[in-house]
Amino acid sequence: MKPIARTPIPDLNALPEDIRARILTVQEKSGFIPNVFLMLAHRPEEFRAFMAYHDTLMDKSEGLSKAEREMIVVAVSSRNQCQYCVVAHGAILRIRAKNPLIADQIAANWRKADITEKQRAMLDFAIKVTDRANEVNEADHEALRAAGFDDEAIWDIAAIAAFFGMSNRLANVTNLRPNDEFYAMGRG
Amino acid sequence: MKPIARTPIPDLNALPEDIRARILTVQEKSGFIPNVFLMLAHRPEEFRAFMAYHDTLMDKSEGLSKAEREMIVVAVSSRNQCQYCVVAHGAILRIRAKNPLIADQIAANWRKADITEKQRAMLDFAIKVTDRANEVNEADHEALRAAGFDDEAIWDIAAIAAFFGMSNRLANVTNLRPNDEFYAMGRG
Amino acid sequence: MKPIARTPIPDLNALPEDIRARILTVQEKSGFIPNVFLMLAHRPEEFRAFMAYHDTLMDKSEGLSKAEREMIVVAVSSRNQCQYCVVAHGAILRIRAKNPLIADQIAANWRKADITEKQRAMLDFAIKVTDRANEVNEADHEALRAAGFDDEAIWDIAAIAAFFGMSNRLANVTNLRPNDEFYAMGRG
Amino acid sequence: MKPIARTPIPDLNALPEDIRARILTVQEKSGFIPNVFLMLAHRPEEFRAFMAYHDTLMDKSEGLSKAEREMIVVAVSSRNQCQYCVVAHGAILRIRAKNPLIADQIAANWRKADITEKQRAMLDFAIKVTDRANEVNEADHEALRAAGFDDEAIWDIAAIAAFFGMSNRLANVTNLRPNDEFYAMGRG
Amino acid sequence: MKPIARTPIPDLNALPEDIRARILTVQEKSGFIPNVFLMLAHRPEEFRAFMAYHDTLMDKSEGLSKAEREMIVVAVSSRNQCQYCVVAHGAILRIRAKNPLIADQIAANWRKADITEKQRAMLDFAIKVTDRANEVNEADHEALRAAGFDDEAIWDIAAIAAFFGMSNRLANVTNLRPNDEFYAMGRG
Amino acid sequence: MKPIARTPIPDLNALPEDIRARILTVQEKSGFIPNVFLMLAHRPEEFRAFMAYHDTLMDKSEGLSKAEREMIVVAVSSRNQCQYCVVAHGAILRIRAKNPLIADQIAANWRKADITEKQRAMLDFAIKVTDRANEVNEADHEALRAAGFDDEAIWDIAAIAAFFGMSNRLANVTNLRPNDEFYAMGRG
Repeated sequence: MKPIARTPIPDLNALPEDIRARILTVQEKSGFIPNVFLMLAHRPEEFRAFMAYHDTLMDKSEGLSKAEREMIVVAVSSRNQCQYCVVAHGAILRIRAKNPLIADQIAANWRKADITEKQRAMLDFAIKVTDRANEVNEADHEALRAAGFDDEAIWDIAAIAAFFGMSNRLANVTNLRPNDEFYAMGRG
Repeated sequence: MKPIARTPIPDLNALPEDIRARILTVQEKSGFIPNVFLMLAHRPEEFRAFMAYHDTLMDKSEGLSKAEREMIVVAVSSRNQCQYCVVAHGAILRIRAKNPLIADQIAANWRKADITEKQRAMLDFAIKVTDRANEVNEADHEALRAAGFDDEAIWDIAAIAAFFGMSNRLANVTNLRPNDEFYAMGRG
Repeated sequence: MKPIARTPIPDLNALPEDIRARILTVQEKSGFIPNVFLMLAHRPEEFRAFMAYHDTLMDKSEGLSKAEREMIVVAVSSRNQCQYCVVAHGAILRIRAKNPLIADQIAANWRKADITEKQRAMLDFAIKVTDRANEVNEADHEALRAAGFDDEAIWDIAAIAAFFGMSNRLANVTNLRPNDEFYAMGRG
Repeated sequence: MKPIARTPIPDLNALPEDIRARILTVQEKSGFIPNVFLMLAHRPEEFRAFMAYHDTLMDKSEGLSKAEREMIVVAVSSRNQCQYCVVAHGAILRIRAKNPLIADQIAANWRKADITEKQRAMLDFAIKVTDRANEVNEADHEALRAAGFDDEAIWDIAAIAAFFGMSNRLANVTNLRPNDEFYAMGRG
Repeated sequence: MKPIARTPIPDLNALPEDIRARILTVQEKSGFIPNVFLMLAHRPEEFRAFMAYHDTLMDKSEGLSKAEREMIVVAVSSRNQCQYCVVAHGAILRIRAKNPLIADQIAANWRKADITEKQRAMLDFAIKVTDRANEVNEADHEALRAAGFDDEAIWDIAAIAAFFGMSNRLANVTNLRPNDEFYAMGRG
Repeated sequence: MKPIARTPIPDLNALPEDIRARILTVQEKSGFIPNVFLMLAHRPEEFRAFMAYHDTLMDKSEGLSKAEREMIVVAVSSRNQCQYCVVAHGAILRIRAKNPLIADQIAANWRKADITEKQRAMLDFAIKVTDRANEVNEADHEALRAAGFDDEAIWDIAAIAAFFGMSNRLANVTNLRPNDEFYAMGRG
């Protein structure tokens, strides 16, 4: 079995207290420590900034539901071939959407998934931000507003796509391995 | 829920006897009829040629094991964003490899999967055949021979990649829907 | 001169009778044995499935004429840089269309060829199936119906593009050489 | 003249005190408020996380000098066609490197810039992380170590490329306009 | 400092009289000899044809102003990552447009530059000619006419994009170095 | 039948004497007027510069034979999907190489053509100049020198690829039609 990551994995007890606390909380809730926490903890300042950014984008449900936010993560991560994020956020998406099929559908081809037209417009835009943000224009904003998104929701879609684009690159460069526990979560 | 496919789905009882028999056999074995059989049965001659081609490439285990053949299918189908093939052959791969994680790993990024160096060379070549067969050259063949594949196994890799490249295109154009049963198979 | 292919070329007399018969028939009709028959005959089961698939797609003229089917082959094979298929099917297209210019025009840039608007829509779709079948959507089907194709003809376009996408990959990997006879056929 | 951004620009006096203070500090130092501060201030939590992440990656000089960090930003931002980041960080790079030519050289084609072989390896890797992080492998790490980078410096290169990949996407989606002051800075 | 180019730089006094005269004229006007003259002078016939082609395309102002012609050069050269042409023609554009910001804006992302809608249509077309001239069609011509360009102006846009596409390739292959003088020109 | 080009075709008798003379000479030699002469004659200054550039690159045989120069034109023009240049220069290549097969082989996939290793290196480089001149580096020059090309021959390869890249764009934008006479030339 491959290691958690190619980077040094810190000893939990040697970590700054706030980081150790956050890791123990997630472990208590999930039953295991997602490997991304151990990888990032090697650099406490980056850990804190990453988690703060993550939380402000993902822990709210106005405009986009929490499940929809995870749909964006799975679609973008699949486009970027980030194994860690597809597997880990696929699990979270199944749980948040209470749908055991949706993550695999979106990972394989979001255009064919069992989602609404509005969600389809959301993912089309997230992939355009991923692949060709330099070409995003007024017509894209109009299409999103026509689909029912306001300007704050559009910012959310773009920011989640951009943030996980960063996360995907970090996970790919560090060879971050998805925990075995993620694969079966939310399939029951 | 979306339909099985955008093409007409024939009545089982109206099908030619050989095709009906093949479908009933797979149903008995799997407990359900994989949708690709129903889509292709609309055209009996194409059904027969497709299945004959499929069987001669996939139902043998010299050179490449049956699980390795399915690895190629999953890697190629993910590259081509074929939802049906990723989900259906992901299930078959989990079963053949007796490994609940391998299909999702390969679908997300084959370069990071828990596979041998030899299998990695096999998938690298399958993706080159998928993306740039026009550039395949003597150096590719040498690398495969160095990895332990003989000329017959190389033909198999290329032929499986090419055949499922065709299959992926058919499934994508017809909007072929993976059966719900596939998602959870082989994860236990 | 380069060999017929990098794969073993079987002795005609050692081939299964049905395969030998098919090869002798084509030789009698054309005056030579197209090299693809000799390459595929190394694997009789694949030979039979390939030919059965080929014949059911190419030997009919409802919906699409036989010349139009060959137009698809030439456009797709040029996109995939398959030297064998461009040269061999270019010859067949010239003969079927009774037009000595059409194959070279389509191979170079199908958008500029002397074809009808309907044939242009057919080739645009064949190339989309070749390059981006994962993005084919309802709008593509509507455009084809508006151009005058029914659902069976659309299946034919997609299936021919997909089948020759497979064939192009096999020919490229095996270094299949076009017979010298093809180059001048149908130019008179 | 185009607006600062397509998003709402907050009133400085209405901002949370920490954000207002940061903005006033940069204004005092630079003589103007870089527009990215005004764009991000619309969302204070994201502002704080972004700045914390930025500072931990950019405000140190072990392994990579501050000028080298800005070289990465300019190369990546040019690849992503981010007008704001190329212009703003081009100015910072000129100042940090005390070199009026280097930013334009890197923005146009980093392969031709007046940089060391080691810096060239750094930028080659940053662009691979930008374009194909999914393909980063052990050989890339070896090449960087051979060029003189240790594992912490490699993390820095990847993290800066990933972070500004996020930043580029946000700036492109929000149509963030570079302040006119940046263009001439550091050219004297 | 890197050399002017990887090709032999001729002695001014050994050059044919017409070429020497042209070079002395530009030197007198600019205060220095742009390196492209020295690179091309190695081959007098190519020098003459290049300059004649350049002058007939760039030294007129009907249909497109001289500044607009330079906008095309900068946009195309940036797309082709030609350091010499981005830097040298960026300087000329700043001077011709009497605008110190425009060249950097267009080089970074022409879609965000402070240009008119008509100029935007001009640059969109120039980039399509650069990237996908094989796909240019009647709809492109109609869009340009709708934007206010007549057929002669459309030819000019295409010809300038094509000519500098050639120039960009020559400069990239020969490692042509921009003169230091260009960077600061027109910024005052 | 489609027109010669979408641009105005001048009356031969109204052309400047030098251009008329050149056209009559080629007509006398070939038996017809290649359409590119009629298209370019609409702009006499561009006609003259184009022909002067063409002649200095193509009408010599040191370093590269005339047939080899035409091989570059056919490979580059096929890559750029320029129907006029593939058909017209395919004819010239057949004649110069005294080989009825070579042009179709190179147009379909130069990597499979009946050419020497040295010619293969020449075409590999010509295509790199066409697709990624921005990435050409010292290793490319070394490979060409190892294959037997001196610096002047390397300049020729690059310049011919670059010049016909321009020509391909002009022909594609103007919808330049190959004369029917070209298709059969040199096949006998």
